[in-house]
Amino acid sequence: MPVDPTTKYKPFTPVALTDRRWPSAVIDRAPIWASVDLRDGNQALIEPMGIERKLRLYKALVEMGFKEIEVGFPAASQTDFDFARHLIENDMVPEDVTLQVLVQAREHLIRRTFEALRGAPRAIVHVYNSTSTLQRRVVFGLDRPGIIEIAREGATLIHRLAAETDTEILYQYSPESFTGTELDFAVEICEAVMDVFEPTPDKRMILNLPSTVEMATPNVYADQIEWFCRHVRNRDSVIISVHPHNDRGTAVGATELALMAGAERVEGTLFGNGERTGNVDLITLALNLHTQGIDPGLDCSNMPDLVTMSEYCTRLPVHPRHPYAGELVFTAFSGSHQDAINKGLRAMRQSNSGVWEVPYLPIDPADVGRTYEAVIRINSQSGKGGVAHILERDQGLQMPRGLQMEFAGVVQQITDESEAEITARHLWEIFEREYLAVRPGDIVLKEYRTVPDTHATDVRVLDAVLVETDEDRAIRGTGNGPLDAFVDALRRHLGTGLEVVGYSEHALGVGANAHAYAYVEMKAGDGTLLYGVGRHTNIVQASLNAILSAVNRSRRGQARAAAE
Amino acid sequence: MPVDPTTKYKPFTPVALTDRRWPSAVIDRAPIWASVDLRDGNQALIEPMGIERKLRLYKALVEMGFKEIEVGFPAASQTDFDFARHLIENDMVPEDVTLQVLVQAREHLIRRTFEALRGAPRAIVHVYNSTSTLQRRVVFGLDRPGIIEIAREGATLIHRLAAETDTEILYQYSPESFTGTELDFAVEICEAVMDVFEPTPDKRMILNLPSTVEMATPNVYADQIEWFCRHVRNRDSVIISVHPHNDRGTAVGATELALMAGAERVEGTLFGNGERTGNVDLITLALNLHTQGIDPGLDCSNMPDLVTMSEYCTRLPVHPRHPYAGELVFTAFSGSHQDAINKGLRAMRQSNSGVWEVPYLPIDPADVGRTYEAVIRINSQSGKGGVAHILERDQGLQMPRGLQMEFAGVVQQITDESEAEITARHLWEIFEREYLAVRPGDIVLKEYRTVPDTHATDVRVLDAVLVETDEDRAIRGTGNGPLDAFVDALRRHLGTGLEVVGYSEHALGVGANAHAYAYVEMKAGDGTLLYGVGRHTNIVQASLNAILSAVNRSRRGQARAAAE
Repeated sequence: MPVDPTTKYKPFTPVALTDRRWPSAVIDRAPIWASVDLRDGNQALIEPMGIERKLRLYKALVEMGFKEIEVGFPAASQTDFDFARHLIENDMVPEDVTLQVLVQAREHLIRRTFEALRGAPRAIVHVYNSTSTLQRRVVFGLDRPGIIEIAREGATLIHRLAAETDTEILYQYSPESFTGTELDFAVEICEAVMDVFEPTPDKRMILNLPSTVEMATPNVYADQIEWFCRHVRNRDSVIISVHPHNDRGTAVGATELALMAGAERVEGTLFGNGERTGNVDLITLALNLHTQGIDPGLDCSNMPDLVTMSEYCTRLPVHPRHPYAGELVFTAFSGSHQDAINKGLRAMRQSNSGVWEVPYLPIDPADVGRTYEAVIRINSQSGKGGVAHILERDQGLQMPRGLQMEFAGVVQQITDESEAEITARHLWEIFEREYLAVRPGDIVLKEYRTVPDTHATDVRVLDAVLVETDEDRAIRGTGNGPLDAFVDALRRHLGTGLEVVGYSEHALGVGANAHAYAYVEMKAGDGTLLYGVGRHTNIVQASLNAILSAVNRSRRGQARAAAE
Repeated sequence: MPVDPTTKYKPFTPVALTDRRWPSAVIDRAPIWASVDLRDGNQALIEPMGIERKLRLYKALVEMGFKEIEVGFPAASQTDFDFARHLIENDMVPEDVTLQVLVQAREHLIRRTFEALRGAPRAIVHVYNSTSTLQRRVVFGLDRPGIIEIAREGATLIHRLAAETDTEILYQYSPESFTGTELDFAVEICEAVMDVFEPTPDKRMILNLPSTVEMATPNVYADQIEWFCRHVRNRDSVIISVHPHNDRGTAVGATELALMAGAERVEGTLFGNGERTGNVDLITLALNLHTQGIDPGLDCSNMPDLVTMSEYCTRLPVHPRHPYAGELVFTAFSGSHQDAINKGLRAMRQSNSGVWEVPYLPIDPADVGRTYEAVIRINSQSGKGGVAHILERDQGLQMPRGLQMEFAGVVQQITDESEAEITARHLWEIFEREYLAVRPGDIVLKEYRTVPDTHATDVRVLDAVLVETDEDRAIRGTGNGPLDAFVDALRRHLGTGLEVVGYSEHALGVGANAHAYAYVEMKAGDGTLLYGVGRHTNIVQASLNAILSAVNRSRRGQARAAAE
């Protein structure tokens, strides 16, 4: 039974602003983008990123064109500290990029933060404390002056340390939980911090007004931003920044209205990763500008790679309906939509105006490295998700994620060479040829049998006959089971290291016609990892075939390398 | 390299409305909700729903409290036609629920639509044609009067057929692609349709103004709706409905602003399923109202079940960060957030006011059948996704989806009895006890061996020894492989039907310590389906154990039934 909300929740009090100007504004330029993927995004992951994933994400952010990147909360996390040091010490920050670090307004945290920044030419120190009515009461038990004092003390120490370091320090202050803070108090505490930092129109500081929790319809956030901009002292000495979350599913809309209301900078993440419902999605915001003829200053032209990178780093999926990015957003299933799209594309070609005007497609899919799909098809830009989807839909394969990535590379190589669109049928042929078919020189399993070892419990002996360049070879090995024993036998026979590091298998079909697909990830003697796939009506033979598939693929690679 | 958008895209022309009133409005009641899950949602699925999934979704919609449900486009799809007939002929439409059907303004389609409705006490006939500048030009090649004529002719036929049928027909008209239509023309064509239908304040018709494609910031849609409401004739004789899509990621925000601007009815779907980026998400809209102390009139109190149902019917995931519904939206990873939440919860208990005020949690998770999670934990309301997540995280299990659902039922039964929160450890104990442990009376595999059949290729003979109530029993069977042969042997031994309908297996760990989990779905002699799970260092024995797990579970169930 639903709860009666009428006594449990209070409606948000509207902002007293009757002469608001933002509803008539139009966004005509891109804001300053600041990525908080490595901080707000990372802290909200089930499994936070290690250094390798952080570096991969950081590089992607730089390549996209981000100029301000919050890389962590170094005083609160050793990993974040080490990551900042890694970037600075290895000179990984381009000249036009500024690192940003977050810190609470507390002395020991601030000192540690400056240690993390040593040697950086320039950095944004982002200090915050929580200011909302609710948090003042239930978390801090402090009145307004007490909360202002926290901010002022923190700012004073930062200002002093900034004078002592060679790093050029840019200042940023956030009244955290701004959306739950009385507006006059938000202005008051920001001005108290400005009194310490003394920003000027030539050296502006950032005032970041977070929608830490979305609490009302998106117009209310715009009202709050406009009210703040109209009341804060020395408006031209500050950059107004927003940092929206998505609790009500309106972060993108609220951000756009906030930009209309005077905000100049947006903190967010790729695909909206972040605490709870996430931060605002900067990719959607950027491409929304793009569709209005405004250069967003962020390169989103290779969306499939961005999606793969994000899914790898965050271990969270990008939803198939995610704007501009999801697998299904450029697919038209309805016949009338397909018809209208085709007519629109034809009219565009005929008019030759170069202006994009196609029904149901607000953006040219090619602008983000995709194609319009009347049905789901595959091409070189479809990425691993698309490839895996097709092979599951048409062939029933349930490929492990690592194999998906490996095979996407195989496909990529072929499509890069041909530049043609690949049909589902062709994709399957590539898969069969790579993993399932026997090629000249391959080792083939002729027969095998396993029996329990008479000398030891839970050990099995496997005898198999291989065919190798037309000759039969008998091999024998022992192990926990047939897989293990077969690998043992192959290791002896080939005289090389060989190890199974991953295995999965599933059946297709029912009864006498059922067959199984086995997938194994193998580590070869030289440490390289590669996959093998086997298929058979017998689940054991499917897995033995999978091992031979990997062994044969490895031998082909060595043969190729030797020939080159 | 990114494309230069400045020449390729034209910015949307703002609406000439300087005295707009919506920015000062506050939503103070729920709109009329109309679900289009079974039509717009269904047509955008990779695999459209069959009758069983449609019925399940339809029942869920009715249970939630939807009073207007678009069940299809019966003239365009035989499945939709049959589904409408099924609901009507089996008397499955509650008295206060009205079915809605979509139809283009074309004669033969309209006639067929009325056939689909025969015998229904009441129905909304929703007729549309496309009106945007772009579609008039490139798709229809018609001027404004030509487009109006299409709508008028369709309406005239519907009006005549409505007079001839016993079904009470309610009228709905949509100028499709409204957001791309000149506002004066949208009013003109709607008024032409009103001239035919002659709505009155006592018998209003629905004018549905779709954001078929999101083309601008959300305030522009609100401007369009307010402009329309202020200019259309006989405003009190029409219900203004909106039907937003999510191309720019702002469907929820745009809908809220449209409600402020005068819309009274919203068409959308659960979790925003629908063409491309989806329709507007009615669950988020409803719960946004809930958090403002407004009764939404939709029961979302069992979110885990709604998510499971939706994922089953659409075969699309609900994202872990989806507002109010995602697995992660009530999880606080950050220590300072956890601390503030705990203090907020304590303050609420102490104040005893009953008003929900907790930092970072805009809604009480209990209102949607969830709990706040300082870390990810499991309880009776976590649903299959949560259970599967925990067992994968802690034990490495990769359970097939069907097993997830079966096991969620097992857990549900236990948690319903105990009402306690279940720890991850307890969850694992339940799983082991149900699927892996041997109980008195169970059949156990002692040993087995397989050899190729000497008489036939690709047939293997399996000999096994079972232990059954302390006695050894030798069994033998033949098949494609050991699984198949073991099932054959068991079938003979037990004298009952037995079939493997699904099988998957994966390894955990590497080398000598590696073991495999096998999952089989079995069909018993009486046709019931159930799962078995096996674990062993030998992949074959893991799968044979899985078969026995299913057999033993089936026997326990029969023993229980006999005892009752």
